Amino acid sequence: MSRDSVVDPAPYRALTHPPDARFIEVLDQRALPHVALPVKIADADTAALAIRRMWVRGAPLIGAVGAYGLALALDRDASDATLAKAHAALDATRPTAINLRWALDRVRAAVALLPADARADAAWREADAICAEDAAINHAIGRVGLELLRDIARRKPGPVNVMTHCNAGALAATAWGTATAPVFLGHAEGLPLHVWVSETRPRLQGANLTAWEMQARGVPHTLFPDVAGALLMRRGDVDILLVGADRVAANGDVCNKIGTYDKALAASDNAVPFYVALPSPTLDPALAGGDAIPIETRNPDEVLAITGRDSYGQTMTVAIAPPGTRAVNYAFDVTPARLVTGLVTERGIATARRDALVALFPERFP
Amino acid sequence: MSRDSVVDPAPYRALTHPPDARFIEVLDQRALPHVALPVKIADADTAALAIRRMWVRGAPLIGAVGAYGLALALDRDASDATLAKAHAALDATRPTAINLRWALDRVRAAVALLPADARADAAWREADAICAEDAAINHAIGRVGLELLRDIARRKPGPVNVMTHCNAGALAATAWGTATAPVFLGHAEGLPLHVWVSETRPRLQGANLTAWEMQARGVPHTLFPDVAGALLMRRGDVDILLVGADRVAANGDVCNKIGTYDKALAASDNAVPFYVALPSPTLDPALAGGDAIPIETRNPDEVLAITGRDSYGQTMTVAIAPPGTRAVNYAFDVTPARLVTGLVTERGIATARRDALVALFPERFP
Repeated sequence: MSRDSVVDPAPYRALTHPPDARFIEVLDQRALPHVALPVKIADADTAALAIRRMWVRGAPLIGAVGAYGLALALDRDASDATLAKAHAALDATRPTAINLRWALDRVRAAVALLPADARADAAWREADAICAEDAAINHAIGRVGLELLRDIARRKPGPVNVMTHCNAGALAATAWGTATAPVFLGHAEGLPLHVWVSETRPRLQGANLTAWEMQARGVPHTLFPDVAGALLMRRGDVDILLVGADRVAANGDVCNKIGTYDKALAASDNAVPFYVALPSPTLDPALAGGDAIPIETRNPDEVLAITGRDSYGQTMTVAIAPPGTRAVNYAFDVTPARLVTGLVTERGIATARRDALVALFPERFP
Repeated sequence: MSRDSVVDPAPYRALTHPPDARFIEVLDQRALPHVALPVKIADADTAALAIRRMWVRGAPLIGAVGAYGLALALDRDASDATLAKAHAALDATRPTAINLRWALDRVRAAVALLPADARADAAWREADAICAEDAAINHAIGRVGLELLRDIARRKPGPVNVMTHCNAGALAATAWGTATAPVFLGHAEGLPLHVWVSETRPRLQGANLTAWEMQARGVPHTLFPDVAGALLMRRGDVDILLVGADRVAANGDVCNKIGTYDKALAASDNAVPFYVALPSPTLDPALAGGDAIPIETRNPDEVLAITGRDSYGQTMTVAIAPPGTRAVNYAFDVTPARLVTGLVTERGIATARRDALVALFPERFP
């Protein structure tokens, strides 16, 4: 595949590394869709903050930002001690997505045996390579997934109705997104598509980010509250449920944004095929099953209050519950492999089973 | 059962009819939990508006307000024409809950054969009777449901964890609520309880109303985003799922607030018992199955924007999606009877099957 063919034509980028620059620029995703605010990240602490505070989110993207964070740390001090400390600090920012650890390990492995004065350059090159590979992987996932959408289009009139959850778009990655890649490629080729966008409480990544991406690319879409997913499937309004993942266990259990498991149950009850877009860095072969995945809990204030745009266009936060209300805020859930129709990877579709994953990615299962 | 024993000791009332008054007072539920605003309703048009605009909501409560609305219409003009017109206007305010039609039919039947000058008084009496019966029914549901909670308490240490959805509380009825009645009675008797309150997008009746009721009565509770329901069940944190209903078909299919069906699927997948509190006026024996129930669609703005309290304590509405986003807003869904463990009625628990409902309410199946 030529490098050119995978260039995402989108008018926005979640992450940019200008050639030869010793900084990166990211979109502050907390401000979207109300304001598109680019933020420069020029040191490792800021990279860690950007991940922890969710200026950036999405498994592939936090892997990439983590990789650059390690490069930024080595720019300041390329010692073994700094390498270890920065790796640990960046790894601790978000516990659930495996891509972050995978990217940090990869940069560390690329520089660990080099002399100190060669480490920083090598780290920047490795981070760039991770980004280029992420874009290529997502493009390949797009080609594989597009065949599923074409199959549906051949069997029915009207647009193919794709339901997605949270944001597994180009804002969650370096380009194309994972779950959105088939949609964006199909739309570019003129395949009639309609995307059901779940709002994705508590942080509203669907309403804030996926709706914004669909609008930016002109893909027909409709927002729905998370509670309506099952009804839409029961009504026959959904042809395929297609989401991303934060970590997939060796047995095919899928850890993804909270609210995925219940949508998978609804898909199963209504015979809607349920596919998970799985770039191979999101696979965790060391994990036998999904129940061992650490589920991040976040600040209950994300549940108790909602941020939006007031009638003057200003960003505002409003409280929705009585003062003093207690809330829980789990960020992810685990969908058992039995509910997954297939895993859409850059090498083709795998059944959500260990043997199928071993067959497709033998080098990951030593 | 004595009348006294069913008096709900709550410090709030969704609906009040002062003795001999020719008006009612309701809490404007759109303002809760931020402001508790009583509103006087002194004519039928205002009663219709209160239902349509959701100052009041909840199947039993809109039945009661509808009944008083008909009495208010007859106060002005007790002719056959006005009776027919007011019945039709009030019935058209909300399509899904069957209690509204049931209450309107009941008031009409109570007055239709009377001379015109006796109709209004009779209508007020009938509306009062509907309210008194609603409170008694809900209290009886509470006693029946409390046995379920006691059974759970006997089998495990710690509090009984009840998950509910939307608001089937005293704010949805004239007293006690339906799904909440067992909780409120159990709490009053010292049974250790903890309620999982779903926020219930798009209108947030859980965060706004159920959390407020639990706080007002001192019942331990935790708010969760709708997406977290399935995970909480999978974690083993839920002992029983208990919700209300807007209409139950003769076969036991349950129409309730959107988001009930997916929680029922999650309960089924995790062996959590799922009970529906069903006051008999919510039963629609004429309807063979749930798929024929008309599902109300509401203004998409309810999905696109959220109302809450800003840091100055003012009620504010903020937009959460990019301008121009399209949204759908179905208000209810239908849960198939196969997913329902039991229907908690004022006469005992019925399996969600026609024969069981016929056995319990033979007079409703002529």
